[in-house]
Amino acid sequence: MRDDAPVTAAVLIIGDEILSGRTQDSNLAAIARFLAPLGIDLKEARVVPDLEIAIVAAVNALRRRYTYVFTTGGIGPTHDDITADAIGAAFGLAVEHDDAAMEILAARYRPGEFNERRQRMARMPKGARIIRNRVSAAPGFQIGNVFVLAGVPKIMEVMLEDVRPRLQHAIPVISRSLKVQLPEGQIADGLEAIQKAHPDLRIGSYPFFAIPGMPGSSGTTLVIRGRNNAEVDVAANEVLALIESFGASATAVE
Amino acid sequence: MRDDAPVTAAVLIIGDEILSGRTQDSNLAAIARFLAPLGIDLKEARVVPDLEIAIVAAVNALRRRYTYVFTTGGIGPTHDDITADAIGAAFGLAVEHDDAAMEILAARYRPGEFNERRQRMARMPKGARIIRNRVSAAPGFQIGNVFVLAGVPKIMEVMLEDVRPRLQHAIPVISRSLKVQLPEGQIADGLEAIQKAHPDLRIGSYPFFAIPGMPGSSGTTLVIRGRNNAEVDVAANEVLALIESFGASATAVE
Repeated sequence: MRDDAPVTAAVLIIGDEILSGRTQDSNLAAIARFLAPLGIDLKEARVVPDLEIAIVAAVNALRRRYTYVFTTGGIGPTHDDITADAIGAAFGLAVEHDDAAMEILAARYRPGEFNERRQRMARMPKGARIIRNRVSAAPGFQIGNVFVLAGVPKIMEVMLEDVRPRLQHAIPVISRSLKVQLPEGQIADGLEAIQKAHPDLRIGSYPFFAIPGMPGSSGTTLVIRGRNNAEVDVAANEVLALIESFGASATAVE
Repeated sequence: MRDDAPVTAAVLIIGDEILSGRTQDSNLAAIARFLAPLGIDLKEARVVPDLEIAIVAAVNALRRRYTYVFTTGGIGPTHDDITADAIGAAFGLAVEHDDAAMEILAARYRPGEFNERRQRMARMPKGARIIRNRVSAAPGFQIGNVFVLAGVPKIMEVMLEDVRPRLQHAIPVISRSLKVQLPEGQIADGLEAIQKAHPDLRIGSYPFFAIPGMPGSSGTTLVIRGRNNAEVDVAANEVLALIESFGASATAVE
């Protein structure tokens, strides 16, 4: 399940509540942190409202471009939960009550409580494979290379665990981060030279301003990322030497 | 500057650090909360890496589809700051040092400190209008309907303030939220009927699980959104009556 070919992914966050600013999304970062140790490159993310035409267009653009697509949100029992139907439309597949999902959900409720609305949570495109959720029972599903997950972060995270064995792995990206009390503009030339010498690495520079106006509270976090541990080490040492050439020191950070 | 025509927007978040999971984005929610009282509908967001081809494709897709596009990230002095060049490429415009930006930046630094790398922060597509930033001086820019903002949240937010007078307004969306200790599956039918009776409103249903397994800690937040205050009130009262028909009560929340 692990080789050297690139494995890529996109995330599609579905929900009016993210675009209205009512809810701060945390699922994108959680999925990114889940994929990183598997060596899967997260290449793009999109956020769309609870609107079928928008979901269909985004799913179809992303599933053709990347190895995997992970969607979050819109799989509950209410009228605004339209993800199963939208994914069915994107694939041109009928959406039906899945037997395994019906069984799991029926076992969850007391007699008489498993009403028609709750049965809606068992609907998925024909041929889909369920994704288990031990928090609230209601399953997600996989169809083709698309994994349809819940929007509630705790549930989304247990669904990712269920999905893990289905994913192809690749060599993970290793990352070294150095925090330095130097402004970006001072080290930019040296940093670019190091980046040019290591085209297989990605060197990122992120300014921080802890307390605006307070000397020494601002600086730069430098992140060196790549799949070759030895090369990341070499570049990190070059960055360290650059920092020291300005009489500064660096702190290794997560 | 305010009328009844819909005014729409998209957000484009540029940066490897968001897709690697190293940084939790907060700019999308901040822009959403900024646009809401102006009546501007945020319709879509995308996150792309620091890669020109990805930025160009996303900017061109979004700027043709929405009234405004707000980008964040990639406008600093280092090699990974490629947003100005990418936006220039998207518009087919040359990217040059802007006179006003050069003046602002030159005033910020001590003699000899305004080096070539820092001058890069004055580069923008020909014809762009600067966006001022009173935190770190380095300006963003507007070209056509695209507003290019910093990635650092505090700087991004002051840039939005500078942009505010340039934006067309519309009637803002009003929102009422009710928190109720009832599961979604119980109220879904009644809720759908209310949604159908008010097609101009958007009624959202969001389950919460405060303490998994603890009775009474889970429930649903119901959000009624629309531009007509009176109709939002009517629907909110209908939702309240629905909740009370199950012997439950609701708390108004933000």
